[in-house]
Amino acid sequence: MNPTAAYDALKRDTAELNILRSTAALLSWDEQTQLQDKGTAFRADQLAYFSKLTHEKFTRPQVGEWIAGVEGTDLVSDPESDIAANIRELRRAYDRATKVPAALVEAMAKHEVLSQQAWVEARKKSDFKAFAPWLTKTYDFKREEAGHVGYRDHPYDALIDDYEPHETTAGAKAVLEGLRDKLIAIVQRAAGSTKKAPQLKGPFSIEAQKKFGRLGAEKLGFDFSAGRLDVSVHPFCSGVAPFDTRMTTRYSEDEMLGAFFGVLHETGHGLYEQGLPKTEAAGMPLGHAISLGIHESQSRMWENLVGRSASFWKHFSPLARQHFDAFKNVSDDDLMFSFNDVRSTFIRTESDEITYNLHILLRFEMETALIAKELDVSDVPDAWNAKMNKYLGITPPDAARGCLQDVHWAAGLVGYFPTYTLGNLYSAQFFEQARTELGDLDAMFAKGDFAPLLGWLREKIHKHGRRYTAKQLVEKITGKSLSAEPLLRHLEAKVSEFYG
Amino acid sequence: MNPTAAYDALKRDTAELNILRSTAALLSWDEQTQLQDKGTAFRADQLAYFSKLTHEKFTRPQVGEWIAGVEGTDLVSDPESDIAANIRELRRAYDRATKVPAALVEAMAKHEVLSQQAWVEARKKSDFKAFAPWLTKTYDFKREEAGHVGYRDHPYDALIDDYEPHETTAGAKAVLEGLRDKLIAIVQRAAGSTKKAPQLKGPFSIEAQKKFGRLGAEKLGFDFSAGRLDVSVHPFCSGVAPFDTRMTTRYSEDEMLGAFFGVLHETGHGLYEQGLPKTEAAGMPLGHAISLGIHESQSRMWENLVGRSASFWKHFSPLARQHFDAFKNVSDDDLMFSFNDVRSTFIRTESDEITYNLHILLRFEMETALIAKELDVSDVPDAWNAKMNKYLGITPPDAARGCLQDVHWAAGLVGYFPTYTLGNLYSAQFFEQARTELGDLDAMFAKGDFAPLLGWLREKIHKHGRRYTAKQLVEKITGKSLSAEPLLRHLEAKVSEFYG
Repeated sequence: MNPTAAYDALKRDTAELNILRSTAALLSWDEQTQLQDKGTAFRADQLAYFSKLTHEKFTRPQVGEWIAGVEGTDLVSDPESDIAANIRELRRAYDRATKVPAALVEAMAKHEVLSQQAWVEARKKSDFKAFAPWLTKTYDFKREEAGHVGYRDHPYDALIDDYEPHETTAGAKAVLEGLRDKLIAIVQRAAGSTKKAPQLKGPFSIEAQKKFGRLGAEKLGFDFSAGRLDVSVHPFCSGVAPFDTRMTTRYSEDEMLGAFFGVLHETGHGLYEQGLPKTEAAGMPLGHAISLGIHESQSRMWENLVGRSASFWKHFSPLARQHFDAFKNVSDDDLMFSFNDVRSTFIRTESDEITYNLHILLRFEMETALIAKELDVSDVPDAWNAKMNKYLGITPPDAARGCLQDVHWAAGLVGYFPTYTLGNLYSAQFFEQARTELGDLDAMFAKGDFAPLLGWLREKIHKHGRRYTAKQLVEKITGKSLSAEPLLRHLEAKVSEFYG
Repeated sequence: MNPTAAYDALKRDTAELNILRSTAALLSWDEQTQLQDKGTAFRADQLAYFSKLTHEKFTRPQVGEWIAGVEGTDLVSDPESDIAANIRELRRAYDRATKVPAALVEAMAKHEVLSQQAWVEARKKSDFKAFAPWLTKTYDFKREEAGHVGYRDHPYDALIDDYEPHETTAGAKAVLEGLRDKLIAIVQRAAGSTKKAPQLKGPFSIEAQKKFGRLGAEKLGFDFSAGRLDVSVHPFCSGVAPFDTRMTTRYSEDEMLGAFFGVLHETGHGLYEQGLPKTEAAGMPLGHAISLGIHESQSRMWENLVGRSASFWKHFSPLARQHFDAFKNVSDDDLMFSFNDVRSTFIRTESDEITYNLHILLRFEMETALIAKELDVSDVPDAWNAKMNKYLGITPPDAARGCLQDVHWAAGLVGYFPTYTLGNLYSAQFFEQARTELGDLDAMFAKGDFAPLLGWLREKIHKHGRRYTAKQLVEKITGKSLSAEPLLRHLEAKVSEFYG
């Protein structure tokens, strides 16, 4: 078979795989937003079956032969061409997938669905013991997976690499620990200040929150004719299909900032998904995001760097006052302070831009210890609480506000958390560059004009899909390798502004 | 392979097919309730792929060998046993499926999705010409399908048999034409009466309608922990999975009876789905409904024989008065008259119990003429309007209220309509029997006690799944073959009560 025929065969096969994966994504979205209790057992079978089916299809020796049939030929002589990028990434995925047995993939998929159901119940009752057997099983599976994939220094290497290609345990540790002391110092500066941020008083009508959140997503540029915004226990954004991007959030009448900034966050993910290459690329790696860290750079940029800026609220505070009485007698300055309050919280998703990264450090340390069997699952609540106390100076009163708060471990996502802080770093470095290239972004935001920034992101990041690695991309856009400096500059300026 | 091993292999294979079919059902539900415009093209590819995948899987020669390996053995010596029923129905389905080429199945599935989208647009604009090419293509496909399946007297035989096993064009014609003159006479009696039914005045809040509809479904016995009620352009009920039954309706602020009786109708379907055998039978024929006519007998019974009865409203009218101001100053007698108004309408789904069957006759005559090429697609609007005038004495002012009103043809459902009237006939015959066996049903309904009737239906019909054919079932339950008499008795009594 000549290289062109091999590549054509890969395109056809990948299009079918894309249909199956997209279907699994919809089954999962539906499970989290629509499915009622008694339907979950069958759904677990269904997801496990699709996981097995796609795994078996992708790992056929024939697929490996097609990939090998294109590698090293003229078709891939330009390393930045569509075909070269697709073949490079297919090779990477194929090698990983062929190392993990189909039976393990199926068992994990089934376990993850049931485990999430168990987590929902355990979290309701704040009952860690009820969830512990599920978590133990998750880590058993993950150790087995890491063993099949292989790793150089640490079993966690094999896991983090699945979410953030080319990242390692040591690399993530260096970044996170490098931030640690400076972040703790910033948190202590804020805590030591006599200034206290005002708090918006509820209740906030859920209907009004839904309208205002949708308005925010629309103004940033989310295309609702190619996507949705729904409700789920744990907010997420899923690129279900090429023109079908589905975001979720959760609402509370007592508090509206969590839902609103949550929507801005998911909109950042959604804009990336909507900006990825479509047509035939959709099924190929080129139609997909580079890494979770780069994905998170988009969500964090819109949520924090844009959404918590004074210029953003010059445009949005009059709109907020139309939706919520609570905004009516609060000055813009007070609003800004309340949106940028630095305060240790139990819940990661409710935490501020600064303490957030300490939440991630904690999880990273727990995950690496659990996978290496340096920490026993039964000791998770105590270890969690001790770290919370050390980094944030607070101790969760129960497991629901401690180690049971996140869906990730229940969903089998081990190695995923560090990508959040990597995303913060990428976002700050990209945003500094955008400011340099686009001029007065604040003036644009104040007029509600977010199109120039979105256009820049589309051009610099979205439209390339997986053409570059994360490291290549950041160097290509900013001319430098990833650095903590832009994020620390941003956070220090913010604390100085509000806390003096 | 011994018969037990062959049957076990069939069970495993059928369980996988059930997962694939259930997934296709969810993709279809999602398309009609959740999916946004730009996602529809990919969804069409997706549904076509699943249609092809399940067709290819089910029509493997191996499946035929397994079926043949059980047929004629001791395993099926009792014709009413689970295994005998499953093998009988698998044979029937396998023979039909192996006659239709996979490429045709895939092309039809893809066409049906796009055709439904075209229909939604054409109906909005009342533009039959925009829809005509899609309808022409549908009938081309259906003629091709009938050719592959084969038929004795009429190509329509091959189509109606897919929805109502063992039914024929001649059989349906005899039933429908036998009703025609008596129904026209009843309609004319009502039209000639000086009594006019009062009309409830809106607007009716959509939120209140949603609550009241859900309350109705719950009181009849629908289990919302194993199902949902949502909104779609055309109401339907889908048994998506063994414990996942999804109903839809549509709301208008101007009028609430359409949505409410629609919910009762879909609840009838939903109760049947929820009452079908579960566990291993779910993937086997035994886990599924007998026919659309029997399915419709359940929806019609709850909608019309129960839901439009005075005893039902003894319980529900106080509840309706809590939800809707319009009910407050209307007597129960007037309410009953308004629910049982006989009046020629353009829209089938808004028509009364009596004229409804004339709508079906019209569609049956058009379908048989279209498939036999005795009627050209371009003449559909004129032919439709002429028949409306002849049977109901009214002429639709536009195609949206005429030949574009139903989703069925857009969805490729040719041969489906007659099952609605067969359902009416079955429902009346079953209900007369239930009255005989259960005693004073009216006294139960007046207390809001629907459990005895539901229990009877579960025991007599639901729990048997596809164990019996429709003809066997009606004889087994009522001791008689299907007859028009119970339905005509019911309709004549109703007209006498309200119109004298």
